[in-house]
Amino acid sequence: MPKISAKGNAMPQSPIRKLVPFAEAAKKTGKKVYHLNIGQPDIPTPQLALDAVKNNDIKVLAYSRSEGSETYREKLAAYYNQHQIPVQASDIVVSTGGSEALLFAMGSIADPGDEIIIPEPFYANYNGFSTASGVKVVPVVSKIENNFALPPIAEFESLISDKTKAILICNPGNPTGYLYTKKEIEQLCNLAKKHNIFLVADEVYREFTYDGVKHHSILSEVGMEDYAIVIDSVSKRYSMCGARVGCLVSKNKEVIDTVLKFAQARLSPPTYAQLASEAALDTPQSYFEEVIEEYNDRRLTLINALKEIPNIEVAEPKGAFYCIAALPVKNAENFAQWLLESFSFNNETVMVAPAAGFYASSDMGKNQIRIAYVLNKEDLLKAVQIIKQALATYTD
Amino acid sequence: MPKISAKGNAMPQSPIRKLVPFAEAAKKTGKKVYHLNIGQPDIPTPQLALDAVKNNDIKVLAYSRSEGSETYREKLAAYYNQHQIPVQASDIVVSTGGSEALLFAMGSIADPGDEIIIPEPFYANYNGFSTASGVKVVPVVSKIENNFALPPIAEFESLISDKTKAILICNPGNPTGYLYTKKEIEQLCNLAKKHNIFLVADEVYREFTYDGVKHHSILSEVGMEDYAIVIDSVSKRYSMCGARVGCLVSKNKEVIDTVLKFAQARLSPPTYAQLASEAALDTPQSYFEEVIEEYNDRRLTLINALKEIPNIEVAEPKGAFYCIAALPVKNAENFAQWLLESFSFNNETVMVAPAAGFYASSDMGKNQIRIAYVLNKEDLLKAVQIIKQALATYTD
Repeated sequence: MPKISAKGNAMPQSPIRKLVPFAEAAKKTGKKVYHLNIGQPDIPTPQLALDAVKNNDIKVLAYSRSEGSETYREKLAAYYNQHQIPVQASDIVVSTGGSEALLFAMGSIADPGDEIIIPEPFYANYNGFSTASGVKVVPVVSKIENNFALPPIAEFESLISDKTKAILICNPGNPTGYLYTKKEIEQLCNLAKKHNIFLVADEVYREFTYDGVKHHSILSEVGMEDYAIVIDSVSKRYSMCGARVGCLVSKNKEVIDTVLKFAQARLSPPTYAQLASEAALDTPQSYFEEVIEEYNDRRLTLINALKEIPNIEVAEPKGAFYCIAALPVKNAENFAQWLLESFSFNNETVMVAPAAGFYASSDMGKNQIRIAYVLNKEDLLKAVQIIKQALATYTD
Repeated sequence: MPKISAKGNAMPQSPIRKLVPFAEAAKKTGKKVYHLNIGQPDIPTPQLALDAVKNNDIKVLAYSRSEGSETYREKLAAYYNQHQIPVQASDIVVSTGGSEALLFAMGSIADPGDEIIIPEPFYANYNGFSTASGVKVVPVVSKIENNFALPPIAEFESLISDKTKAILICNPGNPTGYLYTKKEIEQLCNLAKKHNIFLVADEVYREFTYDGVKHHSILSEVGMEDYAIVIDSVSKRYSMCGARVGCLVSKNKEVIDTVLKFAQARLSPPTYAQLASEAALDTPQSYFEEVIEEYNDRRLTLINALKEIPNIEVAEPKGAFYCIAALPVKNAENFAQWLLESFSFNNETVMVAPAAGFYASSDMGKNQIRIAYVLNKEDLLKAVQIIKQALATYTD
């Protein structure tokens, strides 16, 4: 039989994926499973986005432009400008989800063997895109006791070599929920400029910030035109994960021209989803206010409930809709599997994401889990009670 | 300024892309441009596919499964079985267009520096996917005087080294329109088995065959379970290029498991477009009969008209909707640009794709153009007349 590539063998599996068969088996026994493991919000998609697709009058479902439809990019540029991000349509390439924008970014700025520095824990699929691109992830540890704040900038600097092409951050962070301060963003920008490397920011959770704290885009920083690459997506902003529409934004024309070559090879982003995404830009502010109030309620409900579990340590997220907790267990992956396989409380259990898969360093985060607060408050409270009961009986 | 990657710099531009500014400039002067350069059909998308999207009742536009929705894959497997391709849903990974399926295939079977043998001329974006994957394309020349039939199998064999991971064919061919015979497919299958390499077939034009000649899938061949990987797409079959839905099909479980890891990293294919694609599988046979009759009429109209041009050589396509012609010019790219920039006939001109960009070997196909017969017959005839008049005055 012909052999699979070394790259293919090296492609990581998502930290959640291994648990899926156990969740399916649990459901088959009639057990209810609360899913705290995924970033699929239950929030309704804005009606005007859904209606734009329902009311389309397409007769021939044709390719759009490789860089995305002109009208969508123009409206998207206006949206960014409203958010103090001074860009034009020509600075934007529409992608098939934020995923493709990340792949395009890596391909455009790094060759096989090159390195990208990423604070860990980080969004696990960064590993997949790096492996697919032959790029080496160099992690810098951020710590639960600091709520996963930016590690000291000297730690980044000590890791920069002539192989380093970029620093990649997720802000607000998946899986940490951490929102970088203006000062932290400035430090990263200065470091990128000093060492002449790119700063890539995954800002897909931009709208989701709490406690009155503001999001700071790297594209709003002065003098970052050559260095800043922003990854964005409609998936979380408008609860449109299935659209598969994202974009890459940069004022660096060489970057955009190169990304466009990757974009042209795959012809175009999806046409229907661009209709929905363009319409979604007219979503009234009241939608976001309601959604953010809902997420904030869930966040406080979740954290307060978790804190009542003995010997648990919980980070205080300020953005996105994730939270990391350190459990009084040796191996959270075993615990997560046990929850599905062997535990139930009133014939219910929970599925959580073991956090070790969000670290590139081995032996990090072994006792941590990521919880996505994408369920309503009542279900969140039930789920936390199940975890509490489970920890009371679990021994590892 | 930080540097673009070597890979990014090496990414090829499409052979058509360079001409786009000249076409835009021509249109600004009021000239009408007949587009023979693109594979975007003018055929209406089946109404039931369009209706499936218009009548959707989605409230939360959620991710689908990474491998594609279960109902779509089940129906797709039934479609293949109707076409004597014995596969199951578990042999299929739904992709974002055939493009992504090709990228997943290359990533799963080849590492940077590995080689894939492709008969040339070939679909130009194979160059883009190869460059993005770090894979080297090794071309084997097929010739216009043979209608671009499969080159002698000994030529393939002489190029196989320990770096060779696969042979890639497009059947029926873009840009050649050539349809491989059963004997040619068997020769390729035997070669793959003999040398223990993969055979990848891009079969997206399967339905479009003429003169009563039948398409032969590599997946219908006996004993190819371990070796065959088929790339497919709804783009041309249902005139749904903008859906961005394709798939990769293989009976090799290691291949599917590896492709799935790439698929999981990008989360899911587009949800709306999967609704359209699933509904499209119910398209009645009468739709295809009408469409194929229309393409066949265009094909005959085009070829007969082209043959009346002095000193032109025209291949006889048996499939897809492309045709390659060798013109009495030294450099068809210069001629194509001149058509847009400097020529008009009744204030009209044409845009064609210079064929040199479909060859990996330099100096091949310099006097050839690819014509896509995606216009109605009347426009095709006008376009050919323009080419005829142009050639009568052109000197290079």
